[in-house]
Amino acid sequence: MEKLVGACVFGQSGGPSAVINASASGVFSEALNQPNITEVYGAAHGIKGILDENFYDISKEKPHELWLLRNTPSSALGSVRYKLKDPRVDNTDYKRILEVFKKYNIRYFFYNGGNDSMDTCNKISKFLLGAGYKCNIIGVPKTIDNDLFGTDHCPGYGSAAKYVATTIMELNLDATVYNIGQVTIIEIMGRNAGWLTAAAQLATAVGGYGADLIYLPEVPFNTDKFITDVKAVTEKNKGKCIVAVSEGIKDKNGKYISEVLNAASATKDNFGHTQLGGLASNLANLVKEKLDCKVRAIEFSLMQRCAAHLASAVDVEEAYLAGQTAVRMACNGETDKMVVFERDTSTGTYRCIPKLIDVALAANTEKKVPLDWIVNGGTALSKKYIDYALPLIQGDSKAPLENGLPRFAKLEKILVPKK
Amino acid sequence: MEKLVGACVFGQSGGPSAVINASASGVFSEALNQPNITEVYGAAHGIKGILDENFYDISKEKPHELWLLRNTPSSALGSVRYKLKDPRVDNTDYKRILEVFKKYNIRYFFYNGGNDSMDTCNKISKFLLGAGYKCNIIGVPKTIDNDLFGTDHCPGYGSAAKYVATTIMELNLDATVYNIGQVTIIEIMGRNAGWLTAAAQLATAVGGYGADLIYLPEVPFNTDKFITDVKAVTEKNKGKCIVAVSEGIKDKNGKYISEVLNAASATKDNFGHTQLGGLASNLANLVKEKLDCKVRAIEFSLMQRCAAHLASAVDVEEAYLAGQTAVRMACNGETDKMVVFERDTSTGTYRCIPKLIDVALAANTEKKVPLDWIVNGGTALSKKYIDYALPLIQGDSKAPLENGLPRFAKLEKILVPKK
Repeated sequence: MEKLVGACVFGQSGGPSAVINASASGVFSEALNQPNITEVYGAAHGIKGILDENFYDISKEKPHELWLLRNTPSSALGSVRYKLKDPRVDNTDYKRILEVFKKYNIRYFFYNGGNDSMDTCNKISKFLLGAGYKCNIIGVPKTIDNDLFGTDHCPGYGSAAKYVATTIMELNLDATVYNIGQVTIIEIMGRNAGWLTAAAQLATAVGGYGADLIYLPEVPFNTDKFITDVKAVTEKNKGKCIVAVSEGIKDKNGKYISEVLNAASATKDNFGHTQLGGLASNLANLVKEKLDCKVRAIEFSLMQRCAAHLASAVDVEEAYLAGQTAVRMACNGETDKMVVFERDTSTGTYRCIPKLIDVALAANTEKKVPLDWIVNGGTALSKKYIDYALPLIQGDSKAPLENGLPRFAKLEKILVPKK
Repeated sequence: MEKLVGACVFGQSGGPSAVINASASGVFSEALNQPNITEVYGAAHGIKGILDENFYDISKEKPHELWLLRNTPSSALGSVRYKLKDPRVDNTDYKRILEVFKKYNIRYFFYNGGNDSMDTCNKISKFLLGAGYKCNIIGVPKTIDNDLFGTDHCPGYGSAAKYVATTIMELNLDATVYNIGQVTIIEIMGRNAGWLTAAAQLATAVGGYGADLIYLPEVPFNTDKFITDVKAVTEKNKGKCIVAVSEGIKDKNGKYISEVLNAASATKDNFGHTQLGGLASNLANLVKEKLDCKVRAIEFSLMQRCAAHLASAVDVEEAYLAGQTAVRMACNGETDKMVVFERDTSTGTYRCIPKLIDVALAANTEKKVPLDWIVNGGTALSKKYIDYALPLIQGDSKAPLENGLPRFAKLEKILVPKK
């Protein structure tokens, strides 16, 4: 395979995670050491930064700050939600990207993100191939949702799962402190795949203080059965019940439960333009109405995806490795691929091996929780899930403390002069 | 002073914190070593456990588990919100407490809690004194609200403040990831005192990624001014604004803003029995309506008071010390007191010295944030606050990990046979 010589650009896309910058750290440290890479650019706000020629010169950053990126949450370069059009319909953006790549002699492109970002990666790769412009392109996976196809798991998932499991353990201890019953409903991210909500089972099965009922979007949600489930737990458990529920649960017709419940309230109460509560408070209202008990709704909100102080060491290392691998493989001539993780189960000890698959395979395909891992009438996860997820949340990795607070990376972000 | 020989009982009261069990650990380890203390009891659910003679035999617990209490959140013995009546009106409970104390020869009583709990402590102390029953009683302070009178600060505050500051830093990085404006409104606990919300200033002034606007209940809240404040920040800051707001903010008439806004919505939208949103979502709706921008409401909910994984080492040590000091002082003959912390500023380095004050002084008196520490038109805290709070959030102290999750204490909770 031909070895390309030229600049590289790295972009971050989609929702942030605790470890997306760990992948950036892996890409940058490797790229700065590769002889065939002449310049290392960071695209400001992903693909938008490429279209607008907004590149940060990573060689001007202090190595220590690039190292601190490993434990700095969110997307240090800025992210974007910009979906490229189908090039058969409108190829304006692609032509612009080609123009920019030529102008800056960009021969390596690394894009970090989830399904949509891999779709972007794939479309650009195919367009440049078609245009005969040589550029090695590799996607770096990232998503707390863990729903990317073709990989055992995604960087970002382990840390978010550790946040969910640890925080539910703490909430369990808090919620049971008074000698009166309380139903606690915890809403967790995941529109279509329930991986993150499933992490509540780690708190229950491993931590010993967990959720009593867990609902994933993979199983149609029935509000009557839900009330029956909660009632059964409270009757067994002195009125106490902890529920972990995915924001994306849907009824048997595929309609989001939050919409169903909002619509019911709207009819009943003549809600106008006022923004309605989220799923957790809707379900809390329902439980209060049906069971007449104390209920508390809790949303993990953005905290679950940016809690770098609670990151999994395994996840941080693997995210770094994913970035490093992408650069190494591209410098070995690979292109049109995405980094994936394969689990080596031969030794009985968890080991994760980075590999490559065609980026087209990962684009726009969602991987869900296997239905046979969901047990107890759709309210718990089996041991198969525990065996799968437990290795991913191991160890601590966090930013050094300065004045008692995390010392996150502070990049200079020096823009490359436009050509 | 006479040295009493007999059993001791320890109870936990009020809302839990990350370090209330660290005080328990301090009480238990010290009490188990005191020759004059014949039995060490833990009251199940505070004062209720005394009234019902539900005592756990702490000598039967494994020392390692008692040690793990240092980093186990919430109240391991169970808490209670039970307000003793004024003994001049109804002394039934007091007579019952005296009866139980006599029956079990309880000569030492330690009670851990905030304002209300110190009131309980004080009333029991005065009743037993009046009845001529010798029992040394010392209150152990605890509250994330930091509003106890007579002490420099309270165990529980440092850890909750560290959670608030750290999490706001992470949310700041997350909220600014897209190149579009967003107003983020974060609701923090504190009905009357703004200490915990003030911790947002640590993120801003020390962490470098903080809140732009901070509102405490000490300053009357004006919704028009609030909108003007937010507008000014968004105009200066590309549409981005992070607001930290205390749940207890009130208008100039002392009415909770959440009630004011709920009432306004109710009139407008004919809300019925449906539970209304919290303050953060009310303010978010207001901002959306007035400024027509993207807004996100976040509640730190129970997480801010039970996040033991993010506890301050200084706080854990001091909470332990408070428990230990209470027992030592009681064994030296002290009674009718509460442990307080005095800050020794003589050396230029932070040092906290435990002392005693009359428990009556602490009962039912709230300490608020000094008004002259609140600056920028009631939207920020001065350096005086930073100097005050920064020493309290130093260092990490957390439970050991087992399988990647915190290993919290597991007490046997063996009940003492009723006499």
